[in-house]
Amino acid sequence: MSELLTERSGRVAAARKLTRRAGRDAAGAFLAEGRQAVSEALATAPDGVHEVFATEAAAAAHRDLLASTPVPVRLVTERAAAGLSETVTPQGLVAVCALRDLPAGQLTAEPPRLAVGLAGLADPGNAGTVLRTADACGAGAVVFGAGSADPYGGKAVRASAGSLFHVDVVRGAPLGPLVAGLQAGGVTVLAADGGGETALDALGSALAGPVLWLFGNEARGVPPELAGAADARVRIPMRGRAESLNLAAAAAICLYATQLAQG
Amino acid sequence: MSELLTERSGRVAAARKLTRRAGRDAAGAFLAEGRQAVSEALATAPDGVHEVFATEAAAAAHRDLLASTPVPVRLVTERAAAGLSETVTPQGLVAVCALRDLPAGQLTAEPPRLAVGLAGLADPGNAGTVLRTADACGAGAVVFGAGSADPYGGKAVRASAGSLFHVDVVRGAPLGPLVAGLQAGGVTVLAADGGGETALDALGSALAGPVLWLFGNEARGVPPELAGAADARVRIPMRGRAESLNLAAAAAICLYATQLAQG
Repeated sequence: MSELLTERSGRVAAARKLTRRAGRDAAGAFLAEGRQAVSEALATAPDGVHEVFATEAAAAAHRDLLASTPVPVRLVTERAAAGLSETVTPQGLVAVCALRDLPAGQLTAEPPRLAVGLAGLADPGNAGTVLRTADACGAGAVVFGAGSADPYGGKAVRASAGSLFHVDVVRGAPLGPLVAGLQAGGVTVLAADGGGETALDALGSALAGPVLWLFGNEARGVPPELAGAADARVRIPMRGRAESLNLAAAAAICLYATQLAQG
Repeated sequence: MSELLTERSGRVAAARKLTRRAGRDAAGAFLAEGRQAVSEALATAPDGVHEVFATEAAAAAHRDLLASTPVPVRLVTERAAAGLSETVTPQGLVAVCALRDLPAGQLTAEPPRLAVGLAGLADPGNAGTVLRTADACGAGAVVFGAGSADPYGGKAVRASAGSLFHVDVVRGAPLGPLVAGLQAGGVTVLAADGGGETALDALGSALAGPVLWLFGNEARGVPPELAGAADARVRIPMRGRAESLNLAAAAAICLYATQLAQG
């Protein structure tokens, strides 16, 4: 039986640095924790998985997943696994994966039918949830503008429920030039805005062609100069008395409406 | 200048018990923290607000809100306010409000056009978010079935963003009899289910009449016996590769589609 790596081993210490953004960016890698994330990583991008850490219990529980993979599986102590976890109940299974960033230029060169741009979205859970919804609705890419939560952080990876491995991710790109570039390529840019002049259900055929949706900060929305550059500022009509919708709920409504219109 | 109440005062100690569900149920009251919640409570149900606790700083900052209210405002120390808060950064402003529970019988006697039933929804943030979305889409009531998160807990109240004061709340009602009672009254009962046999966009006129949506536990969904009693188990069609949607995102899509169909 192979020896268990402890939290003091060089490999585990190096992986622990990936729980912080600076560590991830320096190493070009991130941690995907739990069965769903590890399984999606191995299925979708096996070449991008450097290694998997597993406790003995997790290795036994997920033998079906780990037995056939060419990726090295390292057995670790419970304590070492806990140090790699950002959850209250560590799952004992963590993959070290290469960052999946795409250059923004590739997006403007080949715009997907549906893409999402996040302008200052702050909450990592929201970042992951929007990524998951974007994936469900067939989006090809999600752009995390400067100041947005990092989709490679533990909470975001968990909230994305595997979708981080399905959708192209662009980070840190200035959204202004991206919007202009996509518009030049025939993409309709829509800014979600509770005070927008256009109602979602009045967009008609604008939703049927290629679309980039912009969502902003949870409290402040899409920055005015960016919203001003969009083809329309779009509000979700509300029959009830709520002042506004939760950001991830609003994004779900906008993206699903687009999926339906694109047929 | 009146003396500040400390965390040892009887009033503050009594209010602190409301941070726990047992304390809320015993006292028939809950805490609404922050400007938005307190403002909605005072505007919507002033008779249901017993008292407001405010730090000196908060009382000054929210003078416009507090000056005209007949509800007693008690000045408290920062530390006392922190003890009443469930947030990382206490806002120094907390209202003690009467629980707003409605008997389930009233719902079957006068069914709203749109209602929501939550079967084992576990996360308080999701509970508040679904309440907020239900409000936005014009729902008249949200039923929190046995085992669901408490909508009166701090996280749920915060996530509801004031909507807790706009929508009728029913707690702990067995959902089976409620479903049967509503169906007898002509309400279409729809269970959200990722594996449902009916696609949301194929429901047609079923969405136009009175509807009760059932949403289940984040991991396990709507219990099979309850889903089986529904008029349809409804899936959200997904063009992309995500296995499923986040519960609050799925609820937003279903409720908005219903609002649109109900016109």
